[in-house]
Amino acid sequence: MGDFGTLVLLRHGESTWNAENLFTGWVDVPLSERGEGEARRGGELLVETGLLPDVVHTSLLRRAISTANIALDVAGRHWIDVRRDWRLNERHYGALQGKNKKQTLDEFGEEQFMLWRRSYDTPPPPIEKGSEFSQDTDPRYAGIGDDAPLTECLADVVARLVPYWESAIVPDLRAGRTVLAAAHGNSLRALVKHLDGISDADIVGLNIPTGIPLRYDLDERLAPVTPGGVYLDPDAAFEAAAAVAGQGR
Amino acid sequence: MGDFGTLVLLRHGESTWNAENLFTGWVDVPLSERGEGEARRGGELLVETGLLPDVVHTSLLRRAISTANIALDVAGRHWIDVRRDWRLNERHYGALQGKNKKQTLDEFGEEQFMLWRRSYDTPPPPIEKGSEFSQDTDPRYAGIGDDAPLTECLADVVARLVPYWESAIVPDLRAGRTVLAAAHGNSLRALVKHLDGISDADIVGLNIPTGIPLRYDLDERLAPVTPGGVYLDPDAAFEAAAAVAGQGR
Repeated sequence: MGDFGTLVLLRHGESTWNAENLFTGWVDVPLSERGEGEARRGGELLVETGLLPDVVHTSLLRRAISTANIALDVAGRHWIDVRRDWRLNERHYGALQGKNKKQTLDEFGEEQFMLWRRSYDTPPPPIEKGSEFSQDTDPRYAGIGDDAPLTECLADVVARLVPYWESAIVPDLRAGRTVLAAAHGNSLRALVKHLDGISDADIVGLNIPTGIPLRYDLDERLAPVTPGGVYLDPDAAFEAAAAVAGQGR
Repeated sequence: MGDFGTLVLLRHGESTWNAENLFTGWVDVPLSERGEGEARRGGELLVETGLLPDVVHTSLLRRAISTANIALDVAGRHWIDVRRDWRLNERHYGALQGKNKKQTLDEFGEEQFMLWRRSYDTPPPPIEKGSEFSQDTDPRYAGIGDDAPLTECLADVVARLVPYWESAIVPDLRAGRTVLAAAHGNSLRALVKHLDGISDADIVGLNIPTGIPLRYDLDERLAPVTPGGVYLDPDAAFEAAAAVAGQGR
């Protein structure tokens, strides 16, 4: 297992806006106390399973960065190399950023709402530049230029994530390093789609639980030895998946 | 000012072993609660003075890494590029690591004690490999090989710090970036010696206060525009220096 590279995915835990049921996207909100606890548990799982990253890749968003800092601190791996890139960011939620999910559902109806949330290629309306929850003057994105999105669907996230996988993560894996990627529901979904070769139709139904490291051992072509990877706490991952399925009923 | 580069030095705050009066060196102890508060204050000073780093360099030790994480989080600069290197570590304290300072003073006498603490070129006895407070099996130093010290005097710290300054920090400054270096009493002393051209005799008397960012604007030769730099909170730095002077009486 993992003779040709080990990748560990870690989705950040609850943020303050998750707790308030707001669309977040690129808005840079912190973890809630519960989310900090999830990050600590993620670090404990790394220790318990002896899975010790050599390098960490994060998005530019506080909730993923804090998750990585906390988990690596708990795991005694605070000193490893760090790489950050906007291409690991959560999906940009366009004009929905900062809006309440329940109010948005009531305003636009369930069909439109679910299309924005769960279709592969329908982005929400673009955010207005200069508006309260826009990032167009944020210095951390100054270097992106015309690539900076004003809204994204999951297909857009795949399109910007895969070049980062190829140019930044693969070289670390090829160097024999165990790579931790601390990121978001949709950027990790995009990565898993690419790794496991999941269809456009199926990927939108895949939910990666928060705070539970997901281990991928990779073969010489960097394909997963075990499709779908292995959660470090399978029982907790199963319960989280069952809870998500229950929400849909 | 700073047309050719701005460097910000930040010495970590109190660690748990500072509080217990133990020689620390490369032993990887955490910040105390007071030390975390110092780091937060450091971050507030960055915000208050509008001095926003573009990249952070840290040692491989938890107390400097946590100081950087906390200060940058407070300053809203958690997303900047991160570089870590053992060459920014605290001075290796050799066989004294883990020993109580008062007991060491009583055991070896004041002359020997002060020679180890404050001479430029007298290292303590080397630490025994495999002993409790040795780092010889620590994976973070596996890549150093024969360069890994078993003890260091300040001259040794200068000798390993200056190549890192030249190869890693200078390129960031030349690229027009504001560089934060979060490190330790002796590695920052070594850097200041190099920057300000301080003599071997004088550098041992220079104390950099903890938690107060020290700003150096650099000219085209990367020499300080203001020798000695400028503390972001000059009053607090003055008080800290007076307190150190008081200890010597």
